[in-house]
Order: sequence, then C-alpha cells, then structure tokens
Amino acid sequence: MSSTFGTLFRVTTFGESHCPGVGAVVDGCPPRLALTAEDIQRQLDRRRPGQSAMTTDRQEGDRVAILSGVENGHTLGTPIALLVPNRDQRPGDYAEMAAVPRPSHADFTYQTKYGIRAASGGGRSSARETIGRVAAGAIAEKILAERFGIQVVAWVSAVGEVVADGVDMAAIDRQTVDGTPVRCPDPAAAPAMTAAIQAARDDQDSLGGMVSCVCRNVPAGLGEPVFDKLEALLAHAMLSIPATKGFEIGSGFAGTRLRGSLHNDPFVQKGDRLGTLSNHSGGIQGGISNGEAIHFRVAFKPPATIGRAQTTADFAGRQVALAAKGRHDPCVVPRAVPIVEAMAALVLLDAVLRQAARCMGRLQP
Amino acid sequence: MSSTFGTLFRVTTFGESHCPGVGAVVDGCPPRLALTAEDIQRQLDRRRPGQSAMTTDRQEGDRVAILSGVENGHTLGTPIALLVPNRDQRPGDYAEMAAVPRPSHADFTYQTKYGIRAASGGGRSSARETIGRVAAGAIAEKILAERFGIQVVAWVSAVGEVVADGVDMAAIDRQTVDGTPVRCPDPAAAPAMTAAIQAARDDQDSLGGMVSCVCRNVPAGLGEPVFDKLEALLAHAMLSIPATKGFEIGSGFAGTRLRGSLHNDPFVQKGDRLGTLSNHSGGIQGGISNGEAIHFRVAFKPPATIGRAQTTADFAGRQVALAAKGRHDPCVVPRAVPIVEAMAALVLLDAVLRQAARCMGRLQP
Amino acid sequence: MSSTFGTLFRVTTFGESHCPGVGAVVDGCPPRLALTAEDIQRQLDRRRPGQSAMTTDRQEGDRVAILSGVENGHTLGTPIALLVPNRDQRPGDYAEMAAVPRPSHADFTYQTKYGIRAASGGGRSSARETIGRVAAGAIAEKILAERFGIQVVAWVSAVGEVVADGVDMAAIDRQTVDGTPVRCPDPAAAPAMTAAIQAARDDQDSLGGMVSCVCRNVPAGLGEPVFDKLEALLAHAMLSIPATKGFEIGSGFAGTRLRGSLHNDPFVQKGDRLGTLSNHSGGIQGGISNGEAIHFRVAFKPPATIGRAQTTADFAGRQVALAAKGRHDPCVVPRAVPIVEAMAALVLLDAVLRQAARCMGRLQP
Amino acid sequence: MSSTFGTLFRVTTFGESHCPGVGAVVDGCPPRLALTAEDIQRQLDRRRPGQSAMTTDRQEGDRVAILSGVENGHTLGTPIALLVPNRDQRPGDYAEMAAVPRPSHADFTYQTKYGIRAASGGGRSSARETIGRVAAGAIAEKILAERFGIQVVAWVSAVGEVVADGVDMAAIDRQTVDGTPVRCPDPAAAPAMTAAIQAARDDQDSLGGMVSCVCRNVPAGLGEPVFDKLEALLAHAMLSIPATKGFEIGSGFAGTRLRGSLHNDPFVQKGDRLGTLSNHSGGIQGGISNGEAIHFRVAFKPPATIGRAQTTADFAGRQVALAAKGRHDPCVVPRAVPIVEAMAALVLLDAVLRQAARCMGRLQP
Repeated sequence: MSSTFGTLFRVTTFGESHCPGVGAVVDGCPPRLALTAEDIQRQLDRRRPGQSAMTTDRQEGDRVAILSGVENGHTLGTPIALLVPNRDQRPGDYAEMAAVPRPSHADFTYQTKYGIRAASGGGRSSARETIGRVAAGAIAEKILAERFGIQVVAWVSAVGEVVADGVDMAAIDRQTVDGTPVRCPDPAAAPAMTAAIQAARDDQDSLGGMVSCVCRNVPAGLGEPVFDKLEALLAHAMLSIPATKGFEIGSGFAGTRLRGSLHNDPFVQKGDRLGTLSNHSGGIQGGISNGEAIHFRVAFKPPATIGRAQTTADFAGRQVALAAKGRHDPCVVPRAVPIVEAMAALVLLDAVLRQAARCMGRLQP
Repeated sequence: MSSTFGTLFRVTTFGESHCPGVGAVVDGCPPRLALTAEDIQRQLDRRRPGQSAMTTDRQEGDRVAILSGVENGHTLGTPIALLVPNRDQRPGDYAEMAAVPRPSHADFTYQTKYGIRAASGGGRSSARETIGRVAAGAIAEKILAERFGIQVVAWVSAVGEVVADGVDMAAIDRQTVDGTPVRCPDPAAAPAMTAAIQAARDDQDSLGGMVSCVCRNVPAGLGEPVFDKLEALLAHAMLSIPATKGFEIGSGFAGTRLRGSLHNDPFVQKGDRLGTLSNHSGGIQGGISNGEAIHFRVAFKPPATIGRAQTTADFAGRQVALAAKGRHDPCVVPRAVPIVEAMAALVLLDAVLRQAARCMGRLQP
Repeated sequence: MSSTFGTLFRVTTFGESHCPGVGAVVDGCPPRLALTAEDIQRQLDRRRPGQSAMTTDRQEGDRVAILSGVENGHTLGTPIALLVPNRDQRPGDYAEMAAVPRPSHADFTYQTKYGIRAASGGGRSSARETIGRVAAGAIAEKILAERFGIQVVAWVSAVGEVVADGVDMAAIDRQTVDGTPVRCPDPAAAPAMTAAIQAARDDQDSLGGMVSCVCRNVPAGLGEPVFDKLEALLAHAMLSIPATKGFEIGSGFAGTRLRGSLHNDPFVQKGDRLGTLSNHSGGIQGGISNGEAIHFRVAFKPPATIGRAQTTADFAGRQVALAAKGRHDPCVVPRAVPIVEAMAALVLLDAVLRQAARCMGRLQP
Repeated sequence: MSSTFGTLFRVTTFGESHCPGVGAVVDGCPPRLALTAEDIQRQLDRRRPGQSAMTTDRQEGDRVAILSGVENGHTLGTPIALLVPNRDQRPGDYAEMAAVPRPSHADFTYQTKYGIRAASGGGRSSARETIGRVAAGAIAEKILAERFGIQVVAWVSAVGEVVADGVDMAAIDRQTVDGTPVRCPDPAAAPAMTAAIQAARDDQDSLGGMVSCVCRNVPAGLGEPVFDKLEALLAHAMLSIPATKGFEIGSGFAGTRLRGSLHNDPFVQKGDRLGTLSNHSGGIQGGISNGEAIHFRVAFKPPATIGRAQTTADFAGRQVALAAKGRHDPCVVPRAVPIVEAMAALVLLDAVLRQAARCMGRLQP
C-alpha cells in the first residue's frame, strides 16, 4: 500500500468507501499561504456525484474540514490534515456481491494481495479515495496560481465513440468546461456525449472516455531527469487514478506516425523568451518543461460495475450470473475532470519545489 | 536531477554521452543470485547501435564491468556498481550546434534548467544514459525468471504508419523478436517497417513507432495502490525513457470506446486459480496484477536529430537553418526494445519485493 | 517539514497543540492483524500528562478514534488514520509570550524557518505531536509481539543527578516500570528521583533525565547497512523526539574508554544459535541485529518552559524578563517512556519488513 | 541494503574492501559549481591510513576519478560518479578467519542477514566503504563554504581515558587539527593520546575515543521537523559510520543533570540577528538551526580487530582462539575526523536544499 504521492509536496490519502471518513494529509506545503476550507470545497463539489443526470444521484454532499496546519486562514508550513466524513458507513447494497468478485473490479486482486478486503463497497479502490487527492490538489493549484499564474484546466474530450476536437486549448477555462453537464466545451460533441451516456444508462451499461488537460504558464525548467521526467511523473499520477488505461502527452500515439521533420517544434523568439512554433512536444522536452503549454490526455475505461447481468465466476470458481444493484455512474469522465486537474497540480507544484531547491535562491520564506 | 528508480530494488544511473563512462549502481539486489557480466552483456548488446542498417552505425561495442557487489559469481546483497566506459569522450561533431538548440531536443530545456549543459552530445538526455537501465534491468529479469518464471518480451509493433497486428502475445519470445533487424515478429509488417525506415533515412528524416511488451507468469498481488498501482509504475518507467510520448495498458485508448459489458473481463476457473476469459485489463485490476499476462504499449516520437535542414532559432532568438551532421538513428524503436524490457523488469521486481515485505514470510535469505 | 517516518511501515503525524486534532496515518501496515482502538489507547494513556504529581495536571484524557484501515477488528492493509481531538483548541495562557521567544524553545526557530508560527502553544514542537507517534507505535509493537515475540520496554534511568543502575534488563517489564510514578524500576533511585522532581517544581524550575530501553527477542538480521544501520535508524528516531540531546547504544560513550580486548563480545553457542557472552555491542554489530538484546539510552534536557523568571530578549532584541504562566511538566522523562518505546517499535517493524522483502519468502499474506 | 543517504543531495556509495573499486554517485548536486578531483582528493588524503604511526601503515594511496557529472571543471547538475580503484583486490590475510566470525565485527551478522558474505576483508562493513562518503562530503562542503561560508571542523576529543577539554570551538580550524598526528588540537591531551595509542598497539590491542565537530556560520532555519529534525539527521548520519556507539549534541548527556534555569539559552541581540548567550542547545532548537554554532560529539568503540588472542566460537559453535594477523588500526578516531566532517556536510547541504525548496525563491540557477 503506497498512499503517499510526491517528493517535497507530499500527499497521503486515507479512507475506504464505508469507514468513518476519507481524507488526506498534505506535508511540505509552503507556509503563509492564505487558505480556507472553501478553497478546497470548490473542487470537491465538482468531483461530487449527483451533479446531473450524467452521473449517479447518490447525494454525497461531502464537506471538508481542515484539522491542522492552518491557523487564522494561513498555512503554518506544518502538515495539513483534511477530513471528509463518510455518511453511509455500512450500507448493505453491496453485500451479496461479497462471494462474487466483480469482473474488472478490484475485488479479486485486493483479496489476493491482502488476504482480506473491505466487506462492502470498493474499499480503497472506491472512487471515494479520490476525495483526498482533489482536496490536496486544490491546495497545490492555489499556490501555483497565486505564485506563478499557472492555470490547470481539464475537460472531457471523448465519451465512447464521440470525440471532441473543437476545443481551443489556449482559451478554455473551467467555467466554460462546466457549461455542460458532461464537461465538454465542444458545442457539437457535448450533446452527442450526453446522448451516448443516456443510452448506456438505459441499457444498464457503461461507457469509457477521455479527459484532456492543459497547463498554461508553466515556467521552463520543471522536471527531474532521468527518472522523474515531468511527463513520467504526470503519467504516474494519471495512471494512479481509478479506471485509467492510458496516457499520452503532446502528439502522443498519433505522433508516432509522423516524420521528425514534421514533428519537431522549431524554436522562435516569443517576446523575451525562446518558444516553439508548434507544440507536438506538449510543453516538455527531454523531460523538462520548455515554457509552452503542457497538454496531455488520459484514457478511462467504461466503469466495471453495471446493472446488466454478466456471466462470471465466484471466488470458488463456480459460474454465476452477476448484476449490480444500486445506482452506478454509467460514465465517470465528467467527474474525473477535477481529479485529473488535482493530480496535475500535485505534480507541478512538487516539480516547482524541487527546482527551487536546486537554485538555492533563498532560505527565508 | 532524479537518477534513482525504485523503492527496494533501486537503480541509480550516471553518465553523459562523452564523459569517461556511463553506468549504474543497483542497490537492494537480493543476495546469493548467480550473476556474471555476461548475463548483463546480452541485453546491452541488443541495445547497442550499429546492429543493422536499421540503426546508426557508430560502433559502440560497449563492454560492462561489474565493480562491486558480486563475488565468485554470486551477488552479495550489497550495491552492484556497473560501468561501461565511453570510447568517444570528446568528439567535435556536435560542436557547431552549441549555439543552436536542436528543435524538440533537450538542449534548450537543459540549458534553462541547469544554466549549463554538456558541451557536446546530448549529455544526460543522450541515449547512452539508457545503458545503465538496461544493465540493471538484466539483473532484475534474471531474478524474475529464476525465481518466478516471469518472462518479459517486447517487440516493435509500429513504425510510422506500419502497424503490426499479427503477433501472438502468448507465444512470442526474444529469439523470434530478434529474427528481423527491425525486431517486429509480424512477418507481414516487418519488411514494410524496414522499407519505411530506409525511406526516412534516404530523406535524411526520422520516423516514430511503438513498442509493445508482454509480461507472462506474473503472480497475482503485485502493485501498491493507491499511488503506486502497477500500471502507474509502468507508465512512470516507460515515460522516463527518452523520446516516449504515450503509454497504454490492456485495452488502452481503444478501450475507451467500448461499453462495460464488452470491456469487462469475466472470471473463470483456470486450473487452480481464478483467471479471466478476456484480458482488456492487461493483467492489472485496481492497480494490482491479477495473474493474467500484463501487456502494454509505448509510443516513441520520431528522433529529433535529423540531417534535413530545419528553420529554427539560436539561443539569441535569431532565425537560423540547422542540419545535423554525423549519423543518427532514423528510428529508435528497434533499439528501444531491450530498454522497455529493462524498465518493465525493474518495476516488476520492485513490486515483488514490496509485496514480499508485506507478507513477512521469512527473515533469512 | 518532514512528518513521515519509515520506509515500508510509514507513519505520518499531523496536528498542532491547539488545532482541531492531532493524529497519524499509518501506511504499509500488514493486513489481517487484529486491532482495536483499545490496543492503541493503552499506550496513549501512559503518555498522557496528569497521571501523577510528577507531571503537569492538565487533564487531557485523549481518546483515539480509528478513522480507516480497520474493519471488523482487523487491519485491511490500507492506511490506518488515527485521530485524537484537541479539547483546548484556543487557550489564552500562552498569548503574552507571543512577542518573546521562549529561551531554548522552538518559538524563534519556527518563526525564522516558516515566517509564521502557531499563535499559541508550541505548534508542532508541542509534546502533543507525540500522540501520533505513540498511537502508531502501539500498532507496530502489537505486530512485533504477536509475530516475533519481540518485547520493547523503556524506563527512566536518570533524573537530574539521580541515576538508576539497579535495573535488570533481562527481566524488566512494563508493569514493573509503571510501579512507580516516575517509571523507574530501581527501588533505590525512584524515591530520590521523585524528590528531585518535587524540588525542581517547588523552585519553578525543571529537570532533565535519561530513558533507557531494551528490545528483547529481536531476530538477527535486521538493519540496512550502510546508511540505515539499525543503530542509525534508532538514533534518528530518538533524536526526533522533542527535548532529546543524545543517544548511545550498548557500551555507548563509556565504551570509548575500553580497550578492544575488553570491549569485544566473544561468540558462544546459545542453544541453537550463536550468541555473545557479553553485550557491549548492544545487540547490533555492523549495523545489523545479532540476536542479543538491543539496549540504548536517550538523553532528555530539562524542559525549556519554566515558571522562574528568565532574562532574555524579545523578537525585537529588547531585553525582557520572562516567566511562564500555567502549569508545565518539571520533568518529561516519565512521560517519554512510551514515546521511546513507540519510536523503537516503529524502527524495528520497518526493519523487519525490509528484511522480509530481501528474502522474498512469500507473496501471499 | 540501503546505500543511499539524503533527500535532495543524495549520495549512493558502493564497493567492498577487495572488489575492483569503491566509490559513490552524488545525485542532486547543484549545477555550475567549480569542481575538480583535487577538491575531493584533499579530504580523501586525510582519511587515508598510513599517515602516521598512529594508524595502520597499509599504503592505500587512493586516487579518485570523476567519471561523470563534471565538464570543464564545472558541475552539470547531473549525477557525479566517483571511483577509487582497490589495489589489493584479493589478499589472503583474512582467509583463515573465514570460519570464525570476528568478535564484535560484522562477519556474523552479514552472514546471517545475507546468507553470504565477502570472502575476505570486511566487505561493506570495511572502513573502505567510507571513501565514498568522504568523497561526496567534500563536494557538499565546498558548496556550503562557497555559498554560505559554512565551516565544518572535527577533531579528536578523546582517546580512551584521555579527554581533550582545552579546545576553542570558535577558533579551531583543520590546519590546527592536523597539527598533531592524533588530530587533537589540545596541546596537553595530544601527547597523552599518542602515548595511549602506542601502548595499545604494543599490547596488540585497540582503543576507542571520541570525535567532536563544530559547524559554524550555519544559517538559521535548517532542519525538517518533526522526523527530520536537524539533530536527528546528524545522529542518523553519525551512527551510520562504522564503529560508532553514541551521539550527543550541545549539552548532551551532561545536560540531563542541569536544571532548566541553567540549561536554557537566553536570547540576546547579536548584530543584526537574535542570538543566544549560552549554547547548550548546540545550535539547534526544536529541530531547527538557530544561527549559533552547531556542535556535537560522536563515540567510537575500540576497533574489533586486534592482534591479541581472543577466546570465541566459530560458526559451528566450537570454542576457538582467534588472533588477527596483518596490521590493524589500534585507534580509528584520527582517521574518523574527515568522515565525521563529510557526514555533517551531507546533512547540512541537504537541509539547505530542502529549506530553499520551501522558500520557492528562484527557479533559474
């Protein structure tokens, strides 16, 4: 179990789906930052299910409490403990699934790895675990924004077969993203995505999709080659989000089909800095940010828990038919948007601190 | 600069392209393993350039020396230092590129991040850095094979537009892979790939591609949720390889288009264990290996250094034309095969050790 | 701020003296361990102030809640979050000391390092921070006891000038230690210690002392040379406890005066293992446990906060007289006993897990 | 095996006593530092045996080579690999000790932990392992000196019963320390120490001792509470040196006998900063440097390998008489002086980088 992420700005999350609470401890947060629970709550609300017909209507209404590390509205530089109580601490809906590992879920692997697993819900593999990430990420992105003007914006770029390619990465903001329930700012694609999700729901089925993310105003020089290249850290962060199956940066998999003469990003003077004309690199060269916008995409599989009956085996190997009860998200990507943003912010702030260490610029905050 | 990878089986690489040598220190290697330089040399030879017309003909002929940690052909459990001397320690070929950052190369970002950079060659961003990875990975895969029967096999699955889809992941081995210079075991695709690389070379251009990898006989239970899920560690490892732009596991990006009812992998009894009928999960569920084959793909961009003239800017922002001299790989994916294998082995062995710790099975080796 | 301790069994503590709560997250705890809040509470109660006239009479009455990681009385292998609410969340007693950094306290250094500090109490330097350590240590020692029969017992071996040298390390247990309020099992020394503390209290002054600790039944082979030698980890752990000034293991500082022929511990067969006749080594040779009892001592300075007036300077450099109000421990060593035990247990369990990893004995818990 | 020390300035050492070479990889070294092999050689020469009649006369004559990370006399910010070849790669002197674990040496524990050990010499527990530390420390102290004016000076403060208490910590420098072969700058104690060592040598015996160290001009604000308090890191570093048994900082163990009113260090304005009148704290309060001189002492046991016959047991438990052949240091403390300095410098520079990260002062070197 590795529940800590980051080298200097370190986040440790805790909590199963039905224990007393979930949360995180953020260690290494710089001191003297203005911070309130409301700064964190904003992103938690975007992560919450039940925001629209797109997602499950369990009303979680999670409220975060800051337990430590903040006094009189400012960070002390000490660990910030964040807690969100679980309301449904012992529901029965999942009980009859105990003997049958849900296909493509974590029931089987948790049982194998630990020899025990949470009696109900998904335990640590539950989406509720991401609450701690989003809360911690909200702190990171506040520092990034206030100190460096960095903007991190994610959106839904695909739902099933529906792909959004009419999004302007230079202009997009969170308000625009939240303009549709499906969090896709492409006006042509959004209604089609909504329809696709509704159709899957009507079929008691689920749908995968993609989340894209852009990070603007990132200073050049972030990333720690050779093993902690910035894209390697982003890939690690994104593939640690539940239900993810892929990560690509800049030109990504499509770029493998290009020749170097087309793929290379020529340098050109941009104001007082050297920039690039194109950005197939996705803002990172040699594992280090180059000052251009960082952009990447994350693949999410269709949720494993579906209402449709599936033929599978129980833990004893006997063939059974399994149909999930209760309500489940037919598509997680709209809710994954703030999670992707959070993980990106955690990576960037940690990279900022590591580069600042190297530069030994100042020893007093 | 983070040059260490792994939690318990830890690899630290060192060396630039033109310093006295490159290598690695492997810390945490279990004791009493039979190990000789030849075990390591084998994979180094596969990584070496100049193996065919497919790759650059610089004859590196790198020979690894074991400096410590091994005595009388067995590991002591102490750090294993590995050194490969550089032959060309100060060539002049790159000199005139010093004032011009090569497009999509690491010249600009290294200079910005460190305020200094290696005077010639790519410094740490050079492909020579991967020698240390391959050497360390060879040790890891020997342990994995001898102790658990784990097999790690990678191959070239795409070069430019040419995609190999006739590869049997259950049967493929390294001998088959090495059957063609392009390291693609698909008899239809391999000649087309070779032709594509030759064409790019004739045009003084370069080509991207993909490397696929399968890990068989991996025991269930590996991976450390929530942040060190096995796929997250693999993604981190792969995106730390030079020139990579993407990672996908199992169904990957294509899986985002499926519905859950098609994507889920139903359980079924397989001999004495519970297995899955399909393997869209790629051998990992909830971040933990499930006993099925782990398979993933890595995207490599076309090499940035090309002989064709490119219009770009020098460090002062002045427009210049740049054409690389010397010989350069038009396509790196054949040589990337052992690097992908090495990084996969490093991830798997580290995960084995972490899981063994949890189980507290034995305190004497 | 580094609030995490350990490599595989990792403890992250949080909380200031007057925020909503203090606690810890324990990550990497092996699964399937029987665990209840009561297992933890026992050591917390021993740490609590107000147990006798020896210590401050603030009635903290701290009760620990397990927030996650335990279900139906067993650990899940997931992070265990532990919370102890603070009762006095914003007292005023310390307010007038805000402008004057208390001599030999952390007020000045926290202000300098962070540019801000907790408005009252000692913030993270407060003794309340150790609650998280003791809670986590209680989990570690339960595993050590149940799995390996390891016993960790600490006691007060000096208070000021009074030194206890009539303690039998082979026989001592916690019940004996708790037989006197001063936690010294030497019947001659204990009353003298009590008297010395009372005298210091009457003088509105404070007293230092020493805590000794023995760890019995520790298997040979623990410790990770060269930098994580077992004694190095113990020294790190002990010197991270507030108010400590020294650590010595085995013969310690006195051993520097011996010749090798007297200091060396000759080997001798002991039942089915090789043991040593003497134990100047303190149970560790070459950084690795040798199967003999591990024993060490920790020096605690007199508490910095005293009621007597002291001439010092305020933050502006002006000379002032400072006398602490409220009640303060005249001597912390009796309460430090469970803290030393906790830190020792954390070191030992982490070392057990690291050695188990090396041995790759089992991959299923 | 943990052969890496440090969080941001990370040192990994490698090498046994009789393998091809010993050395270190320094990762995280800031770029653009002027550095030559001679900067490193100076401290290696001080560590070398055979400098006087005080120490073993094996002429090691170790010369360090910089393999990577430095170009044209300046650091690149990339890993610096350092190698010192072993001359005596397979001597036979130790051979007959193979069946008999040397008392208080690491033979038994290495064999138990790893199930194998170096066939001759002390393997990783050999003093030769410290070569890598001293080499890395020399780099660290150069940065500390050039950038912050920090001075690290250690000296021999006790040999056996002879204690040096006439040393002025504010004035002492390395030249003065090296003024006597025993590296004790107390003119009264030095000759007595020399005589004591000679007497032990004549008796084919060995002697312990103490090394003291002062670090001047350390800026306030270093150290990472709560677990990486500066004294905890120093204790960890010092107890990782072979043959150490204790560490104390400031008033240390003697301070436990004082009352708080005497022990506290009152604040007073010193030029433009707040300082303290006394320095019982040893320059650290609450785990953070306060701007005063840091001073501490390290206890070294008498070397385990002695020429005198000892009655002990072989690995089979049979009683045997063992007398070491060859020449051995009767007292290691004079040679330990540069090792203590090296480890102190590693701790301080790492603490500087961690504090600089927090302050986010600059992102360009």
